[in-house]
Amino acid sequence: MRFWGWGVDADAGHGLPPQADGLLAEIGAPRGVSAPPVALDDVRLPGSALGDDARAALAAVAAVRDDREARVLHAAGKSYPDLVRQRSGDVSTAPDAVVSPGSHEAVRAVLEVCARHGVAVVPFGGGTSVVGGVEPLRGAFASVVALDLSLMSRVLAVDERSLTVELEPGLRLPEAEAALGERGLSLGHFPQSFEYATVGGCVATRSAGQASTGYGRIDELVLGLQLAAPAGDIALAPMPASAAGPDLRELIVGCEGALGVITSVALRVRPRPAARRYEGFMFGSFGEGAEALRVLEQSGAAPHVARLSDEDETRVSLTLAGGGWKARAAGAYLRARKVAGGALAICGWEGGEDAVRRARARTVELLRASGAVPLGTAPGRAWERGRYHGPYLRDELLGRGVVVETLETATQWSNLFALYRAVGDALRSSLGALDTPPLVMCHISHLYPSGASLYFTFFCRGLPGREVEQWHAAKTAASEAIVATGGTITHHHAVGSDHAPFLAREVGEHGIAALRSVKAALDPAGIMNPGKLLTV
Amino acid sequence: MRFWGWGVDADAGHGLPPQADGLLAEIGAPRGVSAPPVALDDVRLPGSALGDDARAALAAVAAVRDDREARVLHAAGKSYPDLVRQRSGDVSTAPDAVVSPGSHEAVRAVLEVCARHGVAVVPFGGGTSVVGGVEPLRGAFASVVALDLSLMSRVLAVDERSLTVELEPGLRLPEAEAALGERGLSLGHFPQSFEYATVGGCVATRSAGQASTGYGRIDELVLGLQLAAPAGDIALAPMPASAAGPDLRELIVGCEGALGVITSVALRVRPRPAARRYEGFMFGSFGEGAEALRVLEQSGAAPHVARLSDEDETRVSLTLAGGGWKARAAGAYLRARKVAGGALAICGWEGGEDAVRRARARTVELLRASGAVPLGTAPGRAWERGRYHGPYLRDELLGRGVVVETLETATQWSNLFALYRAVGDALRSSLGALDTPPLVMCHISHLYPSGASLYFTFFCRGLPGREVEQWHAAKTAASEAIVATGGTITHHHAVGSDHAPFLAREVGEHGIAALRSVKAALDPAGIMNPGKLLTV
Repeated sequence: MRFWGWGVDADAGHGLPPQADGLLAEIGAPRGVSAPPVALDDVRLPGSALGDDARAALAAVAAVRDDREARVLHAAGKSYPDLVRQRSGDVSTAPDAVVSPGSHEAVRAVLEVCARHGVAVVPFGGGTSVVGGVEPLRGAFASVVALDLSLMSRVLAVDERSLTVELEPGLRLPEAEAALGERGLSLGHFPQSFEYATVGGCVATRSAGQASTGYGRIDELVLGLQLAAPAGDIALAPMPASAAGPDLRELIVGCEGALGVITSVALRVRPRPAARRYEGFMFGSFGEGAEALRVLEQSGAAPHVARLSDEDETRVSLTLAGGGWKARAAGAYLRARKVAGGALAICGWEGGEDAVRRARARTVELLRASGAVPLGTAPGRAWERGRYHGPYLRDELLGRGVVVETLETATQWSNLFALYRAVGDALRSSLGALDTPPLVMCHISHLYPSGASLYFTFFCRGLPGREVEQWHAAKTAASEAIVATGGTITHHHAVGSDHAPFLAREVGEHGIAALRSVKAALDPAGIMNPGKLLTV
Repeated sequence: MRFWGWGVDADAGHGLPPQADGLLAEIGAPRGVSAPPVALDDVRLPGSALGDDARAALAAVAAVRDDREARVLHAAGKSYPDLVRQRSGDVSTAPDAVVSPGSHEAVRAVLEVCARHGVAVVPFGGGTSVVGGVEPLRGAFASVVALDLSLMSRVLAVDERSLTVELEPGLRLPEAEAALGERGLSLGHFPQSFEYATVGGCVATRSAGQASTGYGRIDELVLGLQLAAPAGDIALAPMPASAAGPDLRELIVGCEGALGVITSVALRVRPRPAARRYEGFMFGSFGEGAEALRVLEQSGAAPHVARLSDEDETRVSLTLAGGGWKARAAGAYLRARKVAGGALAICGWEGGEDAVRRARARTVELLRASGAVPLGTAPGRAWERGRYHGPYLRDELLGRGVVVETLETATQWSNLFALYRAVGDALRSSLGALDTPPLVMCHISHLYPSGASLYFTFFCRGLPGREVEQWHAAKTAASEAIVATGGTITHHHAVGSDHAPFLAREVGEHGIAALRSVKAALDPAGIMNPGKLLTV
């Protein structure tokens, strides 16, 4: 990937359409590119602090690189502040080296060397974290290495009878889907970071995909795994279910590299879907739509993909689509309902032809009863085409000096609108106080019987040189609103360093003590991903 | 309950039918009652070792009983060796007192007193453990109390919009169903111990119910909970999903009182089903039936209840049923298939009338394609009538001097028959070596996309005075076979003291180290349920 943004140059065509100018004018953003990224040769890279002995010991067990490109590419994830810093050429947090082991045993050997030499270790999969999860903080140590997992990308086993597979952590999701597809199987995990995210990264961060309402979150797909921790291994065989005490799988899933390195994962897979059908529906309001999705989910009739935009996101979405299907759809809706505004939903069914037909019929029956106006497959296809484009658009906005961020939470249905209002108000008032009022949009994208996720996107005019301060004010206000209103601090972005100060508000002092005790048992020297998940 | 067995005297009518005599003759068991239980007044109860200061401090914060009845009733769970000992009047492990707090705060106060005075604490819900989970072992402490949760049995909150409830741990399942039923809701959790099991006990032991294929195991229903540990509380609000690090809920669910006391639980509930339909199907063999259930589950077409008996369990079941529907069903099957033997399945659908009709049609379509012969609703109704009778029958068998035990495991579909054979062989050879060859039966009762449970029942002639030795030989051989063949040491009975020596084989040395570290953080003095879950 480009060190200062998403994707590679060849894929950079997912830019902003001309209609975006009106939206940018709403927030007072200047026209034209205001802040181009620096070139790789111009970034200010500190010298490597890795000692010669440690370097030699690492090179004996794994590939080691400490050239400019390798260090810069592992210097940060893809959060907004990461990108602001990288674009400006500030890579002061770059790792002292990038170490790439090729096997579980090599990972063990790397951890032993690092523990012996006092080197912090930051596991690095696809590098797509948006919460500071892969930033090479060194904590109390003099040096830090990125432990790159790209050499561990094999399919280790396929059990077609049990519909399970065993994968290495560095396997990227598109490669996993391709390898499984040859066997007629699919993992069904499609986060927005799909093009670059790795299996291990998804498991370490409790990822959710765009179709997880149907296929389940990654934590529902993990049946077993192996962890290489500095103190030793934990290998949990894939079990369909067990009553053998606390579930240690759930302690390793979501550990974000702070307990050790996940070196293999056994996952549930599905038959590769023969059919996929995505459609649009329009509701009179976000509230009406949310109620309809609640009924769907609690009736067991939710589709694989179920997304509902609020009125502002619907308006922005229709604007960006220009004169195509969206304008026609909006027109159809307005004619049908004789109202302005509305909330757009995308529903998608996947599976065998029969299963899709049956499931769709039941969903549509309930949606119609809820007052939804069907818009056909054009909006569904348009959503599918753009489903991974968000990060490319973000790069365009950064180039225009716009502050842009997404954040997400989840709560019970009964609390959903209190949380929706609290977070929106926090974003508007925190950025309003800086005289940069934002445009705030939200969608529901994951349904559960007891509640749903809320995914917020906000933009505001950047104050040159103060963008990270603006971001911090908005992010802090939103996080405070989330924990105060009973939402989870993160539904699928994970904790990283950005959310670490809020974790104690969610799990309490003794919850943190339990996590710290496990970390002390598995990583006694504290070399694993310092400053992530736990604040110290 | 009767201290020496299951249920109360008034419910003791679920005895063995006359046809059982032939089966008992097969294993060489003598006719007639050979070992009646002793009377309460005749049990050998040691004096209470609880110090006066500790007793007074406990009495200041909770109800305290140390009379004979209270101590004897809390002296053991309901495992086979528990009952053998209790029937013989051996209650040497009775707790020194029974302490009943009435609130979370009172539990906290009890734990503080016990930590200060060095008193071991054994949480006690319904007392139905079959793995030694509530036996009042005192570990390194001079005294031990049973912490009885029966005074904490309130429904704390009902959220009809989110379909969640908050319950106190001492609420018994029938009371929970009744209270929820008044609101049109159901928890849908029906273990064989349903009549006596408590909500907190189910959560602490990762219980599964007879309809858990449809409703989910208790660990899939828990959304939040509160733990009172000696070091402090952990309160986790109900979240539909979260990526906020390792899932601490899954560390408390299944903790078996070894980390603290669960003082409230937030659970997912369903609308109370308007319709229930249970039917029987006959397969040519256990293997054919298992294959059909795999296809059902992996097609998303499994019913709420899905049970399949092997050929021996089918034969015993038909024999015990005498000349009723089962004989007719067997006749119909034999005529249809022109073979002897066969494997009986019970399928049950629950929900709205429409949902049951739709789900049943799909299941039956797939079952017929798999070669199942439908037997109609009579076998289903018969199963429903007897679904909680197993423990009463066990008391009858104990009275006849028969050694009887059930044990359970789960594994992936691809490993199911290797595990089935290994456990059956282990039971037959271990008991055969003692010259008491057993009758071994098995059923599949819980389906998962990647695998299924196996539930074994075995009987053999008891050697008077050596019954626990026989049990131990068989149980050890079966447990060794399970861990060696890749099954989980327990699918829903939990770890307790019986499985504790095998837990390390499943989760490894460093898995145990992680659990121990959490215990040390939450229960630094080690007063919570010593000898359960972890061996020390």
